[in-house]
Amino acid sequence: MDETLLPAIGVEILIPACALVAIAFALVQWLLVSRVKLSPHGLDSAANDGGAGKNGHAEYLIEEEEGLTDHNVVLKCADIQSAIAEGATSFLFTEYNYVGIFMVAFAVLTFLFLGSVEGFSTSSQTCTYDPTKLCKPALATAIFSTISFLLGAFTSVASGFLGMKIATYANARTTLEARKGVGKAFITAFRSGAVMGFLLAANGLLVLYIAINLFKLYYGDDWEGLFESITGYGLGGSSMALFGRVGGGIYTKAADVGADLVGKVERNIPEDDPRNPAVIADNVGDNVGDIAGMGSDLFGSYAESSCAALVVASISSFGINHDFTAMLYPLIVSSVGILVCLITTLFATDFFEINDVKEIEPALKRQLIISTILMTVGVALVSWIALPLSFTIFNFGTQKVVKNWQLSLCVAVGLWAGLIIGFVTEYYTSNAYSPVQDVADSCRTGAATNVIFGLALGYKSVIIPIFAIAVCIYVSFSFAAMYGIAMAALGMLSTIATGLAIDAYGPISDNAGGIAEMAGMNHRIRERTDALDAAGNTTAAIGKGFAIGSAALVSLALFGAFVSRAGISTVDVLSPKVIIGLLVGAMLPYWFSAMTMKSVGSAALKMVEEVRRQFNSIPGLLEGTAKPDYATCVKISTDASIKEMIPPGALVMLTPLIVGILFGVETLAGVLAGSLVSGVQIAISASNTGGAWDNAKKYIEAGASEHARNLGPKGSDPHKAAVIGDTIGDPLKDTSGPSLNILIKLMAVESLVFAPFFATHGGLLFKI
Amino acid sequence: MDETLLPAIGVEILIPACALVAIAFALVQWLLVSRVKLSPHGLDSAANDGGAGKNGHAEYLIEEEEGLTDHNVVLKCADIQSAIAEGATSFLFTEYNYVGIFMVAFAVLTFLFLGSVEGFSTSSQTCTYDPTKLCKPALATAIFSTISFLLGAFTSVASGFLGMKIATYANARTTLEARKGVGKAFITAFRSGAVMGFLLAANGLLVLYIAINLFKLYYGDDWEGLFESITGYGLGGSSMALFGRVGGGIYTKAADVGADLVGKVERNIPEDDPRNPAVIADNVGDNVGDIAGMGSDLFGSYAESSCAALVVASISSFGINHDFTAMLYPLIVSSVGILVCLITTLFATDFFEINDVKEIEPALKRQLIISTILMTVGVALVSWIALPLSFTIFNFGTQKVVKNWQLSLCVAVGLWAGLIIGFVTEYYTSNAYSPVQDVADSCRTGAATNVIFGLALGYKSVIIPIFAIAVCIYVSFSFAAMYGIAMAALGMLSTIATGLAIDAYGPISDNAGGIAEMAGMNHRIRERTDALDAAGNTTAAIGKGFAIGSAALVSLALFGAFVSRAGISTVDVLSPKVIIGLLVGAMLPYWFSAMTMKSVGSAALKMVEEVRRQFNSIPGLLEGTAKPDYATCVKISTDASIKEMIPPGALVMLTPLIVGILFGVETLAGVLAGSLVSGVQIAISASNTGGAWDNAKKYIEAGASEHARNLGPKGSDPHKAAVIGDTIGDPLKDTSGPSLNILIKLMAVESLVFAPFFATHGGLLFKI
Repeated sequence: MDETLLPAIGVEILIPACALVAIAFALVQWLLVSRVKLSPHGLDSAANDGGAGKNGHAEYLIEEEEGLTDHNVVLKCADIQSAIAEGATSFLFTEYNYVGIFMVAFAVLTFLFLGSVEGFSTSSQTCTYDPTKLCKPALATAIFSTISFLLGAFTSVASGFLGMKIATYANARTTLEARKGVGKAFITAFRSGAVMGFLLAANGLLVLYIAINLFKLYYGDDWEGLFESITGYGLGGSSMALFGRVGGGIYTKAADVGADLVGKVERNIPEDDPRNPAVIADNVGDNVGDIAGMGSDLFGSYAESSCAALVVASISSFGINHDFTAMLYPLIVSSVGILVCLITTLFATDFFEINDVKEIEPALKRQLIISTILMTVGVALVSWIALPLSFTIFNFGTQKVVKNWQLSLCVAVGLWAGLIIGFVTEYYTSNAYSPVQDVADSCRTGAATNVIFGLALGYKSVIIPIFAIAVCIYVSFSFAAMYGIAMAALGMLSTIATGLAIDAYGPISDNAGGIAEMAGMNHRIRERTDALDAAGNTTAAIGKGFAIGSAALVSLALFGAFVSRAGISTVDVLSPKVIIGLLVGAMLPYWFSAMTMKSVGSAALKMVEEVRRQFNSIPGLLEGTAKPDYATCVKISTDASIKEMIPPGALVMLTPLIVGILFGVETLAGVLAGSLVSGVQIAISASNTGGAWDNAKKYIEAGASEHARNLGPKGSDPHKAAVIGDTIGDPLKDTSGPSLNILIKLMAVESLVFAPFFATHGGLLFKI
Repeated sequence: MDETLLPAIGVEILIPACALVAIAFALVQWLLVSRVKLSPHGLDSAANDGGAGKNGHAEYLIEEEEGLTDHNVVLKCADIQSAIAEGATSFLFTEYNYVGIFMVAFAVLTFLFLGSVEGFSTSSQTCTYDPTKLCKPALATAIFSTISFLLGAFTSVASGFLGMKIATYANARTTLEARKGVGKAFITAFRSGAVMGFLLAANGLLVLYIAINLFKLYYGDDWEGLFESITGYGLGGSSMALFGRVGGGIYTKAADVGADLVGKVERNIPEDDPRNPAVIADNVGDNVGDIAGMGSDLFGSYAESSCAALVVASISSFGINHDFTAMLYPLIVSSVGILVCLITTLFATDFFEINDVKEIEPALKRQLIISTILMTVGVALVSWIALPLSFTIFNFGTQKVVKNWQLSLCVAVGLWAGLIIGFVTEYYTSNAYSPVQDVADSCRTGAATNVIFGLALGYKSVIIPIFAIAVCIYVSFSFAAMYGIAMAALGMLSTIATGLAIDAYGPISDNAGGIAEMAGMNHRIRERTDALDAAGNTTAAIGKGFAIGSAALVSLALFGAFVSRAGISTVDVLSPKVIIGLLVGAMLPYWFSAMTMKSVGSAALKMVEEVRRQFNSIPGLLEGTAKPDYATCVKISTDASIKEMIPPGALVMLTPLIVGILFGVETLAGVLAGSLVSGVQIAISASNTGGAWDNAKKYIEAGASEHARNLGPKGSDPHKAAVIGDTIGDPLKDTSGPSLNILIKLMAVESLVFAPFFATHGGLLFKI
């Protein structure tokens, strides 16, 4: 077996170094954002600083600066921001309280189930893949899996919380910068997104790296046991992400739908109008749902694909020969990805200028293209120095010989498949192209045709991403079996820092617009933030496309690892145990969606009633002379989401346990495959349908073309039909759709963690 | 090996006898319906005949008779009926013209592909399952498969056409009977449905039986070749059904949506108002879509499950030992099913009375329960006399020993699973239960919440049917492998005559209501037909539930037969060829739905424009002084459906060919499994969502409870929101949803027919 060019000591330096560079970079970005002062005192210096930036943005801006000297506005913005931040913090703490109890219970369960595999024996056992050696007992796996589970859960919580803090720090600052022009506002929002992106990516990498090194102290040469225990990290991360996504998704959409239905439809007041009692809840929702939830989600994907790759590698030649550099190849790829994203970010913030609204979307798209191209070079380089020329990969009982360039291609194919999915998503959700324009056009005949066209668009948008994923699976599996698929997933996620930055940019801009409206700022400011937000809708859809595509690959890789660990060599569709699993698995995403959508619907109904009650019972509210009771609306969203996140959460967490225990590993394998192939379709179509409806509405509102002006203006019948579509799309694109990718990943990683337990004690019903 | 109690000669008598009895029964029912005269001349005698029926219905009816002597109304009804019948006939002929060309082309393809398996050699070959014997050459299979393909296609066309003729014969008669009361109208509509049900069931059975006997003249002892050729019958039936369902579905919903959007929403005129230019097209649509399309569909299911069972049996001990009675067990079960349905029908038409609107739905439900109970006994009996005590069934290379009572249980479990699916469907789509009432309630906050709740309802309604199908698959597979599953499917379809009668009853009542409105009859008549129609909506949903459930089982059985015939022994999800097939297969129903929904949307837009044009340009139209131009609307629906049915049809028909030729049988197996597990979910949820919206609207309109009255009346905001939901549901429940079960069956049966070709010449891409 060949040696790698990079020595083990190099790895030990490279990975933490990259993580620390990313953290430093994030801090610099944060510093730049923090120069926008939220107190009237610092106002003048902020304006000066902005103008004196080394690129001299001010000279290039075509919009004139507006109301820079109005101290009152700044105070108002600061007030609103702190209200939003307070609401978000308080919700997250409430959520974490409940989820914390669950986490402890589940940690105990993990320990008991895994410990019971060998009856809590403390004596060493013979290794599965080399019977001549002694490996650590199952009890050790139980303990370390539990620890890594808690570690993953904690890191996920930290990621979500950090993201929320950054976003609520940035939103009012973006509003204030919008007074100076759209370019300034863009850079502030984007920089803040970058802070979140880099902190999260570095965080996930660093914690995993440290955990591996600490676990190694105990496990020593037993790498199989070590990396099996490490999979708990993915489980912890994803189960927190589930609750974050579902709880946050219900919160944000209950508030959004409720606010829109009464405010926009019944009372004819604009979006984010301060007279609307649900407006604060709506803005809080963006931060807890789209920011914290999404942060946890992508962290989970990253953790899981790393774990899947590591656990397969541990029983491949890397693990057997104890080649530490090659073993940590997945982490090295991520490290280099962070560096690539760092360079990419500079293209948005320093190398190019945004002078016009039309340049925003291309600038964001350019981020994706640049990072993908740079990363392709990075991957080739890493594969050359960190992998032996040739090595063997475990492939369901046999070892498959793989060349380093082949593995490099696996990562690259995942990376490029991600880009394709991103662009297809953009095509179907951006109002610059015909699909969304057709949907907008169908509003001429009312809401019904709008919904029919929107649903059809979502269904159609599934086709190319599925082919991209299929090609990706075939190529990477052919080259390097399940390890190849795990690496393709990591390839797709290697530019996660940029992806997160782009993704977080959307809700920040959305909030900025809300704050502008609430602070009663000039309508031109609102138009600027709206332009930022429209681009944000598309990038949010792209981000979801990435999340879903990578989730499909990750869960397939986890599925493969589960099958190996459970000791089954084929999953035959012709076996009735498997086919019923497939059928029921394919049903689970529907069950889950039914729960989450109904939750949003019911919570929105409650919100509607409360908002109506306030409008009817508080005198002077509509006239703007009295203040609404924001807190009650915040409480309704909080209570609803906490209560309603439990059933769907339980469905996802308990299904693998129940199926594994009662029906055994074969049926469970069927369930995983079924939910994977079915869930990925619903997730893509739900996200894109929702995104398309949102942008069809924005297309009519903006009236940028002759066609759009024919459909508008705001308040026309087609516009009303478009608003209905947008409202329907809200739970699809922000609650049920994005939660589905967690469903498929989480069930797979949970099955992987509990595989030894199911293999020894599972299948009770068929045993009888 | 044991002998069967029933000798072969008994089978030769029993099957055709049952078919002929059914045809005779259908003729009697037709005679009874025909006594309702559509000419003013026969009016008095009709009234007398009705009153003088042996059960003396007239005495029990609580409604008074209305306008029995108005000769003018009768003439009008006759006029409208002939307009509808003419439109339907002309559309079906146009459709058959186009589809005929396709059929001939596909027949040539079938012959060429299957003939090429052994290079068109005319010499006999050694048998696959007994190398010591000589079997007929592949060329013979090619010729006979082509013949049976054409036979199936022709029978399907005849079934659809016959159904349409009966329905357009019955609709005006139902309207006229509604003047005498709801009970009379119910019996006329139900009898007409029964005519269709029994004729179709007998037809399908008889043609298959005759074909088998004729083919036997050539094949003699080579039963494997014989029954492989017979599978062409299923392919022909299903491919015609596909075009019928899709073409008819687009036709009916383009007209329906178009008529509603302008008539109900914009012009505020009632449904089926004669002033609406699209009203005739709408009523024609019910007959070509819901009647002809559904007739072809269920005939296809029946033909396919029989073929699947026969082809598996031919290589089991029945076939090897040439036990003709046991071999034809599937056909005997269907024969007995027809007799059971005959008795069941009497319960609706003669043993019980309908005196009140509230009794309609229970009466229809009773039909399902009675037929299921009777059939359970029938199955036990048939299994006892027509099966040996013990026999072996082919199970992917091995022979499995099965007892006759076990096979009897397989049929029974399918039968009862069908009933459960039916009842669950009823629960989710009838406005007597809370799910639909909740959806109606959500209309209070507008169309958006209505759509969100409706979608959630559809998703939720998938859960129990999937569990029922899963249990059914597990039990029947455990007992008798793929043969068990095919027999479970036949069990579910054994009461097809009753199912079809109930199903056809719906559109007939719907049409009857339309005719009452158009003929300007008293509003009480319309209320009676509306009550019939509301029950019809639920039964239509139940019928779709049966169709989907049986389609899932049928396609699994066909899938099993395909795998055997293609010579692969496992379909391993861990193989990349299979998993990419699964993923792409699960995507196909989305692609297909996108096409069909978009087609309905675009055709409806055209219809809306034409209807608007007529309202704007024909003076006096809205006042009722001028007649609209019905023909143009009929032409729009016809042209749109003919043009738009080709792409989705091509998708379904070409996918197995392309995948089989380029990627080979393993990937094709994955595609089949993927489309099965994904398609069944979308099909169920789409049908139920659409049915629930329709009945939520009817719930508000009928105002039968305090709650419903709070939401109404017609024209209120909640009612408008409900109408939007209903319109969105139209393409879901009548176009894309029900076409999906044909998609999954058709791809499976096509793969089965072409399996030898793919096995020899397929997988080109992987061979390179």
